[in-house]
Amino acid sequence: MGVSEPTARDLGELGLIAAVTSRLPTADSVVLGPGDDAAVLSFPDGRVVATKDLLVEGVHFRRDWSSGYDVGRKAAAANLADVAAMGGTATALLIGLAAPPDLALDWVLQLADGLRDEAAVVGAVIVGGDTVRAEQVVVSVTALGVLPGEPVTRAGARPGDLVVLAGRLGWSAAGLRLLQRGVTDGPFVEAHRRPAPPYGMGPVLAAAGASAMCDVSDGLATDLDRIARASGVRIELDSAALHDDAVDLHDVLTGGEDHALVATITTPPAACRVIGRVVTGEGVVVDGAAPPDGWQHFS
Amino acid sequence: MGVSEPTARDLGELGLIAAVTSRLPTADSVVLGPGDDAAVLSFPDGRVVATKDLLVEGVHFRRDWSSGYDVGRKAAAANLADVAAMGGTATALLIGLAAPPDLALDWVLQLADGLRDEAAVVGAVIVGGDTVRAEQVVVSVTALGVLPGEPVTRAGARPGDLVVLAGRLGWSAAGLRLLQRGVTDGPFVEAHRRPAPPYGMGPVLAAAGASAMCDVSDGLATDLDRIARASGVRIELDSAALHDDAVDLHDVLTGGEDHALVATITTPPAACRVIGRVVTGEGVVVDGAAPPDGWQHFS
Repeated sequence: MGVSEPTARDLGELGLIAAVTSRLPTADSVVLGPGDDAAVLSFPDGRVVATKDLLVEGVHFRRDWSSGYDVGRKAAAANLADVAAMGGTATALLIGLAAPPDLALDWVLQLADGLRDEAAVVGAVIVGGDTVRAEQVVVSVTALGVLPGEPVTRAGARPGDLVVLAGRLGWSAAGLRLLQRGVTDGPFVEAHRRPAPPYGMGPVLAAAGASAMCDVSDGLATDLDRIARASGVRIELDSAALHDDAVDLHDVLTGGEDHALVATITTPPAACRVIGRVVTGEGVVVDGAAPPDGWQHFS
Repeated sequence: MGVSEPTARDLGELGLIAAVTSRLPTADSVVLGPGDDAAVLSFPDGRVVATKDLLVEGVHFRRDWSSGYDVGRKAAAANLADVAAMGGTATALLIGLAAPPDLALDWVLQLADGLRDEAAVVGAVIVGGDTVRAEQVVVSVTALGVLPGEPVTRAGARPGDLVVLAGRLGWSAAGLRLLQRGVTDGPFVEAHRRPAPPYGMGPVLAAAGASAMCDVSDGLATDLDRIARASGVRIELDSAALHDDAVDLHDVLTGGEDHALVATITTPPAACRVIGRVVTGEGVVVDGAAPPDGWQHFS
């Protein structure tokens, strides 16, 4: 009846923060939670895994294709997966939201709920953040986490290691293409809106002796190329092992944002799929040939 | 001779990250620095102070008024001051940069240098980050720090405490007004471009028994009102004690972004100025009257 939807402007910065904060749980590791100049967190073993990712409207998501809740899940997932890829488990998130003043309050609260719920998958909580005015929605997430053992970097792959995969590839890319064609639901579209990284496999692979690991955020070929370069090795992939009945090989090799975990290891845990091997040399090849290019920003 | 300036697009995401990373120092507290999925940091006492702020082009800075270096100094300062305001010292920064692809590479490198140099003021280093394409420049900074004692929140002010100030107030606001009038240099303009928070006074005030503390990011009256609300007290300020020959009282009371530290305490350290007292009641008054409003986002 002509009543307009409340916006970020209606609450103001402090009201918005209060509205979001009231929806958040806390945890034993949180010495001091949101609402002060900074949060204070407990990391009993004295080491902290820290990572940060930005999601930008029109680049990483569209508000007509993803709800605020979806964007929250996806923004948290990208960061939680980075912590998992070091062999760690995230415990805390800090959130930055740049948003137009006319952004619907409901969208912001959904975003917070999505961030909260994805964080809860690994037992992490939101401990602080900042909200500012901007022309475009930008969601900035910092994840902090604990590390049971030594960090698994990209630089430790050795010839003789197997290459193993946990999680799915190409689903988000397939979902994006369906959205571009006007399809708005189904498993691929859902995978694009809400990636489901195999977080728990990060510490499992680390404990099983993974020599290198990363999450697949920019495409398997691109991300494995980073491991190959950092480790000074060549990675050979088998297309048969990468076959997915539902997704074509190009999407499997180049699709980002599913946040699968890929690792090099001599004795793979049962829950992983072996997709290739590490040899001497350089670069990444699929059945002996160069793979297609993946996703690059600023291009 | 018609050669255009290199841009973020020319280097691509990875080239940009490599160019920035090559300019950064490391520190003993950094177990694993930039370039992997996440950084790993050492916090020997097991507690981490964590905070996050965003700076948005057109809201917090203008590229025609501030260099990339200035924006880097300012973005770091806002976060380092938040850590100081808890009584801590920042040790690590994570940086997120959302930027148009045609942003000059030199601007990005200047930004990184400014962040690095402001961090170095307290001995902190940049340990990671993310860079993405956007329409508007958004700089997101997360600061992590150590805490020598208990965190000083906004909630501990008690009637009988004095209110003390370290640092300057109103200079950034005065500088902004000069820039709006076309004045492009001088001490106030420099103060707007590069705040100089008294970081070291955060731990000093904490050790001296500060009962509440915050940095002045949104204006003294606004920020002290947060302490008054959180502590359930009234704060009385003396305009004579706030007098600054160079800046008018309105700017002193409402100007943000200088990131002075304000604390409540019974026995102030010598380096602070006493500007008022804590009494029973609520709100903030100046010479017994309501102060003007400060800065609010989304308004």
